[in-house]
Amino acid sequence: MTTYQRMVLASRPKGAVTPDNFRLEAAEVPAIKDGEVLVRNHYLSLDPYMRMRMEDVKSYAAPQAIGEVMIGGTVGEIVESKNPKFAVGDKVNGMLGWTEMAVSDGVLLRKVDTTHVPLSAYLGAVGMPGMTAWYGLNQIIQPKQGETIVVSAASGAVGSIVGQLAKKHGCRAVGIAGGPEKCAYVVNELGFDACIDYKAGNLEADLKAATPDGIDGIFENVGGEIFDACLARMNPFGRIALCGLISGYDGESMALNNVRQFLTMRLSMRGFIVSEHMEFWPQGLQELGKLVATGQLKFRESVADGLQSAPEAFIGLLKGKNFGKQLVKLI
Amino acid sequence: MTTYQRMVLASRPKGAVTPDNFRLEAAEVPAIKDGEVLVRNHYLSLDPYMRMRMEDVKSYAAPQAIGEVMIGGTVGEIVESKNPKFAVGDKVNGMLGWTEMAVSDGVLLRKVDTTHVPLSAYLGAVGMPGMTAWYGLNQIIQPKQGETIVVSAASGAVGSIVGQLAKKHGCRAVGIAGGPEKCAYVVNELGFDACIDYKAGNLEADLKAATPDGIDGIFENVGGEIFDACLARMNPFGRIALCGLISGYDGESMALNNVRQFLTMRLSMRGFIVSEHMEFWPQGLQELGKLVATGQLKFRESVADGLQSAPEAFIGLLKGKNFGKQLVKLI
Repeated sequence: MTTYQRMVLASRPKGAVTPDNFRLEAAEVPAIKDGEVLVRNHYLSLDPYMRMRMEDVKSYAAPQAIGEVMIGGTVGEIVESKNPKFAVGDKVNGMLGWTEMAVSDGVLLRKVDTTHVPLSAYLGAVGMPGMTAWYGLNQIIQPKQGETIVVSAASGAVGSIVGQLAKKHGCRAVGIAGGPEKCAYVVNELGFDACIDYKAGNLEADLKAATPDGIDGIFENVGGEIFDACLARMNPFGRIALCGLISGYDGESMALNNVRQFLTMRLSMRGFIVSEHMEFWPQGLQELGKLVATGQLKFRESVADGLQSAPEAFIGLLKGKNFGKQLVKLI
Repeated sequence: MTTYQRMVLASRPKGAVTPDNFRLEAAEVPAIKDGEVLVRNHYLSLDPYMRMRMEDVKSYAAPQAIGEVMIGGTVGEIVESKNPKFAVGDKVNGMLGWTEMAVSDGVLLRKVDTTHVPLSAYLGAVGMPGMTAWYGLNQIIQPKQGETIVVSAASGAVGSIVGQLAKKHGCRAVGIAGGPEKCAYVVNELGFDACIDYKAGNLEADLKAATPDGIDGIFENVGGEIFDACLARMNPFGRIALCGLISGYDGESMALNNVRQFLTMRLSMRGFIVSEHMEFWPQGLQELGKLVATGQLKFRESVADGLQSAPEAFIGLLKGKNFGKQLVKLI
């Protein structure tokens, strides 16, 4: 193999992301220098945060440059090494982007053990999405036994973990997801106490029925109307971990109406980016890895086949078409 | 004197508060029992929170009952005592309501020292408004030297203290107030670095000019457009103390548009009611009292004359017609 494929950002989206915002390129497999490794990526992770990075606006990270390989988390295998810390065959997790192969100096690569945890899980339950759930729930919401925790995008990579961890804290876990199939999965497979289908058109009444004692914590992934409906049910001193606002990533209005609740219920809210809290990762990943290895934490994957399918899979993710963690199988 | 006057809630407001929501009553001065004191109130405090208590909605406190004396903070003097802790002539601060006289068991009365601090200040800078400023700034915003702190309703009882305390922390203090006279007072008398007149119709540009390094902390009293404009200028990890939403107390839309800022800038916000944090009052009141006694903390009062003028003064307060702490001089 002397060439590989990579996907670059061709243009910035105007409104919704379209396939022509991306361009597939062929590249020569490069020679590596001392200290470097060559990685063959097996899986690429697709995540909502990428949508924000495609825009040229002030945000928590520099925007993705036009013409550069799209950023993204990957798991793969060392195929060539001039770095004493890595041997050929080592499985590694990194942020190598939407590319089949990549050269790395190893600094940000993490060796992973696939004895009890499948490689792809390091992009999900035992990776950034799992840590996002762990941090937002444990460090921001700080759930207490008997409280009610609501999470939107509940069947997704992050939401599914939030609810399962909340159950382990002795909480009532209530999910919000799109469609009866996802809701059935959230309750029957993941063990949430209830899941509301926001597409059923009865959000407020369904939420009221599912949270008879009100809501103590919101793990918010969506924003907009769903967030507003949850705010209206908050109990005093409720906590909100603001993780994502996927309903507004294409420029839709994200107006929040129930602002008064923050005052009358003395709510606290914090927006966060889990990569800024690396000091918690060793502890969190150890806990998550143990739960996955022992079958106590379930997850589901949607796997698209081949890098060329990544744009369509990503667009589907933004519309909620995926079911569980969205991955792309590379080579 | 065998009778006194008191003001009761006659009806709940539909939209804006009107004078006929209140009713002035004459009452007989009661005989007191063992353990009780009779207080003659000299000043009544008018505060925005009262507007929320006039409504029959789920909030942090039970609504004000129809036909009962309106709740409110007071300072006055013991005129009769069957309680060994209080002597006739003692000056006391309490929540005795919109009434010239009241009987109390003394439990929630606090004796105050008027040697260096004027009696009325215990309803303002050295009372609940001062503590609100102190708590929100010190415990929620936690300002660091060199940061920029913005406070709305900056010439008011709370806002004026927030900015002056922020200056003592070595911060840039920026106020928002209505009209050139209030803004001039905020800068020239209170020592804020800048004050923006939101009525001048140039809020966003004026705010940008006044906060060249962005905003690190917001002490929010108003909500709505003013809050949105501030959110747009927030720096990463900014903190918001949500103290009031006076622009929406009559049922106006309080929709917040810049919700995305909470995520991209990783902001935190907390709504609070200072009476739920009594553990901080001794420390805070001591600090505030010392600053007032030594002339380091300035404040201004609008004093309405007589209980009969309280409804009009309260309606004016909700419209921002007051200038400084709104009081009513009783007897």
